Amino acid sequence: MKSRIYEIMEKAKSRDIPSLIFDWTLVTLISLNVLSVILESFSSLKKQYEHFFSIFELVSVVIFTIEYFLRIWTSNLKYPRKTKVLSALAFIFSGMAIIDLLSILPFYIPLATSIDLRVLRVLRLTRMLRILKIGRYSASMALIGRVLKRSKSDLIVTLFVTFLLLLLASSLMYYVENPVQPDKFPNIVASAWWTIVTLTTVGYGDVYPITVLGKVLGGIIALLGIGLVALPTGIISSGFMEEIRLKNQSTTTKDKVCPHCGLPIGDN
Amino acid sequence: MKSRIYEIMEKAKSRDIPSLIFDWTLVTLISLNVLSVILESFSSLKKQYEHFFSIFELVSVVIFTIEYFLRIWTSNLKYPRKTKVLSALAFIFSGMAIIDLLSILPFYIPLATSIDLRVLRVLRLTRMLRILKIGRYSASMALIGRVLKRSKSDLIVTLFVTFLLLLLASSLMYYVENPVQPDKFPNIVASAWWTIVTLTTVGYGDVYPITVLGKVLGGIIALLGIGLVALPTGIISSGFMEEIRLKNQSTTTKDKVCPHCGLPIGDN
Amino acid sequence: MKSRIYEIMEKAKSRDIPSLIFDWTLVTLISLNVLSVILESFSSLKKQYEHFFSIFELVSVVIFTIEYFLRIWTSNLKYPRKTKVLSALAFIFSGMAIIDLLSILPFYIPLATSIDLRVLRVLRLTRMLRILKIGRYSASMALIGRVLKRSKSDLIVTLFVTFLLLLLASSLMYYVENPVQPDKFPNIVASAWWTIVTLTTVGYGDVYPITVLGKVLGGIIALLGIGLVALPTGIISSGFMEEIRLKNQSTTTKDKVCPHCGLPIGDN
Amino acid sequence: MKSRIYEIMEKAKSRDIPSLIFDWTLVTLISLNVLSVILESFSSLKKQYEHFFSIFELVSVVIFTIEYFLRIWTSNLKYPRKTKVLSALAFIFSGMAIIDLLSILPFYIPLATSIDLRVLRVLRLTRMLRILKIGRYSASMALIGRVLKRSKSDLIVTLFVTFLLLLLASSLMYYVENPVQPDKFPNIVASAWWTIVTLTTVGYGDVYPITVLGKVLGGIIALLGIGLVALPTGIISSGFMEEIRLKNQSTTTKDKVCPHCGLPIGDN
Repeated sequence: MKSRIYEIMEKAKSRDIPSLIFDWTLVTLISLNVLSVILESFSSLKKQYEHFFSIFELVSVVIFTIEYFLRIWTSNLKYPRKTKVLSALAFIFSGMAIIDLLSILPFYIPLATSIDLRVLRVLRLTRMLRILKIGRYSASMALIGRVLKRSKSDLIVTLFVTFLLLLLASSLMYYVENPVQPDKFPNIVASAWWTIVTLTTVGYGDVYPITVLGKVLGGIIALLGIGLVALPTGIISSGFMEEIRLKNQSTTTKDKVCPHCGLPIGDN
Repeated sequence: MKSRIYEIMEKAKSRDIPSLIFDWTLVTLISLNVLSVILESFSSLKKQYEHFFSIFELVSVVIFTIEYFLRIWTSNLKYPRKTKVLSALAFIFSGMAIIDLLSILPFYIPLATSIDLRVLRVLRLTRMLRILKIGRYSASMALIGRVLKRSKSDLIVTLFVTFLLLLLASSLMYYVENPVQPDKFPNIVASAWWTIVTLTTVGYGDVYPITVLGKVLGGIIALLGIGLVALPTGIISSGFMEEIRLKNQSTTTKDKVCPHCGLPIGDN
Repeated sequence: MKSRIYEIMEKAKSRDIPSLIFDWTLVTLISLNVLSVILESFSSLKKQYEHFFSIFELVSVVIFTIEYFLRIWTSNLKYPRKTKVLSALAFIFSGMAIIDLLSILPFYIPLATSIDLRVLRVLRLTRMLRILKIGRYSASMALIGRVLKRSKSDLIVTLFVTFLLLLLASSLMYYVENPVQPDKFPNIVASAWWTIVTLTTVGYGDVYPITVLGKVLGGIIALLGIGLVALPTGIISSGFMEEIRLKNQSTTTKDKVCPHCGLPIGDN
Repeated sequence: MKSRIYEIMEKAKSRDIPSLIFDWTLVTLISLNVLSVILESFSSLKKQYEHFFSIFELVSVVIFTIEYFLRIWTSNLKYPRKTKVLSALAFIFSGMAIIDLLSILPFYIPLATSIDLRVLRVLRLTRMLRILKIGRYSASMALIGRVLKRSKSDLIVTLFVTFLLLLLASSLMYYVENPVQPDKFPNIVASAWWTIVTLTTVGYGDVYPITVLGKVLGGIIALLGIGLVALPTGIISSGFMEEIRLKNQSTTTKDKVCPHCGLPIGDN
């Protein structure tokens, strides 16, 4: 029975009706949760239907909690370890499980604590990502996942270089603009806001340099921002190409073997 | 005679004079319609030449209506189905036909209705896309179409992930900024406006975070916006490369067959 | 002597001293002209050194005029045609010659005419592009030129689709926002300013939608703007890859011919 | 002993404990220096802990100075030249050494000089880049470095064309907008600020055209800005693909040699 429950909760096989029902019920419940978070943000709606919202929240949290414990119970099927406790821990500290826990925990923590953790409810949104694993878009989802995984190391280096550039640009800009605009560039951390808004080419216009040196520096930083867009794009592009190349290779090599060499022909 | 009319209305063969005349008359009429919509938006021009605009609109709608019915009449040549009615329905519910209908319908619906549907006239603009099918740019148009079709599934997944990111970022930003700027972030739907303006790196500057936490979050969202540009660009780039590779393959394989193996050499 | 003058004015061979002197003199003169245009834009400098600026302008125009007539004279060497007049006309109506003429013509047209054509002097800037043809960056310049030429047709289609999208978005936005912001969206042409600023993700913030429908529409248009960046990037990326592939092919095929097949191996 | 010191200061071998200690000590010291620069920018913190900051600065500069002289001393091992002096000079004028010197020099120059050079302290940030050479991301760092080096010439041409476009657009915009907005476009240099903010699609909104001609011109320049993003992205993308292709080639050619031809098969 345990392995049957596990089967139902995992990705549905094409004809497993209970599993499909489970999947779509959960998708519906998550969607309704997202809708409820959005609607509750309208203060007029919240006042009028407060009772309804709290009942729905109660029902949702109960279901999600049951699901969470069922997943701990069946964790030894997903994460086979020496003991059941190790399996449960392997599950609990997996990325998805932490997010799941965070999204239901705020309900159980007494609301008397000064920090309002209900904001964590929005994490339920991330569960929507799992919807993509069901159905026709799973191949695309897997492809994008593989490309990002393949490019991970290059993207991290790009992010690190961006971070250094951010620090350097913010420091220089602070020294140049602080004497003239002490309210806009009060310290290096605050001037990092300007830098990130410029490097990403968002440019709200709430902060911008007004000195000549600041404008020259700002122009150079904006041009470097173009590079910040170009580098990850190049990395991701080549990642996609490499994936397509590998797919072509594996489909073509089967039939195209030179009878002379006994080696595949034309696969690079 | 029916198949002759169909021939004339479809894409012109290189020397079919009546068909070419039909194509270019329609292109001219559509262009004049677009011009008329633009000119009518100038209130001074509209007042002065109101009579002229309404006559031109009448003439245009009559021509477009005749064309629409002729297309229904000849639909069994384009969409061969069991009965004529099925062919007509296949045409009527095709994307292009719906747009055509929407662009002439407002004229027939009494203007007394409260909603002014004349805005739908601008849909006539989309007919301009068909111009590209005629003439020297048809190959490029077809290439871009094939690339977008090939990348469709990946782009939809990107759009879905963007949509989740949009919801998540808007919710977080609402919880962080609402207490300080209740007029700028009144609810999650309103704060989605900020998120989309930031993720697409437009950055009007009408709404921006002012709290420290909001700025940190905003910076991270803006950086993720770079990824939002990088992903579709990478997908489309690899789509173009794949198309070019396929074209090269089909042109080179003909002559390059190894006389030993009888298999194509060097096509990957 | 005529062909010697032609040789000197054309791209310098590596050791042709007079030709190199000619090239670098012209580059220096153009650079000084650009500097003069920039300096003259400072009203204080213009007043103080007005005399100096007009003498320098006189000298420059005389030199450029002599060069222009020398090029007409030697045009039959560059554009061999049946008669000298045809050669001269072929030169005069070439893109570069038209720009050259436009950049010196304003001097000769009496300044009494109401329109101040001196703005055309800035066209001398475009002559700087020719500098890239000299020296070590000529290969890169040629590569970028070939890529843009190869992608020309695809880029034109992208531009045309962008133009249609611009018209469609501007019309819809005019109908949605005009009743609420008649000063910001007075007509379709004016609302095209908003559309282009949004589609290119510049986003100054001088105009932005304030109605809910306008914001929804604006968000969709901003997302389409991402596509507007992704499409040309993909086209240009694949253009660069194709150029590199062709270069690799031509360098590798020479040595790698299978002695069995007599055909190149492994070039795709 | 000299070569041992050199070994310790250079990139650590996997089990060389003193070298690893040296590397990580320096990384920690640089990180603390960066933190100190950031914290000192908060005026309240600076006042309160001024004594602490100056002691830390003194200690840091002493350590960096000792390191600098040790590197000069061991320079003949890194830059083998005819004489020791030539080796030392080769080191001193290397890019990294100049930055190192600039980042400690301001301490030694008497603070009485009118220009406050302490801003150069932020250059210590660039030393963080060396951290990437240690550890698991060194391969990605090297890959990005190779791609940028390979694309250098193409990127320089793009930058030069951008510079010409910047000058041309600024000049035209000055002539068009100056009569209406003399405070926003006072001269060509000032209007270059608008151009760069537009070309990079940042768009703060502090300056924007208000005349019809200016908006038309601005729209065209913004569209060209899209090209400015597309070109380097395409160049960098193709650079990454070329690097991946070369890597694949070198790993596959070893095993895939046709026993008939004795030539590698399928490498393109």
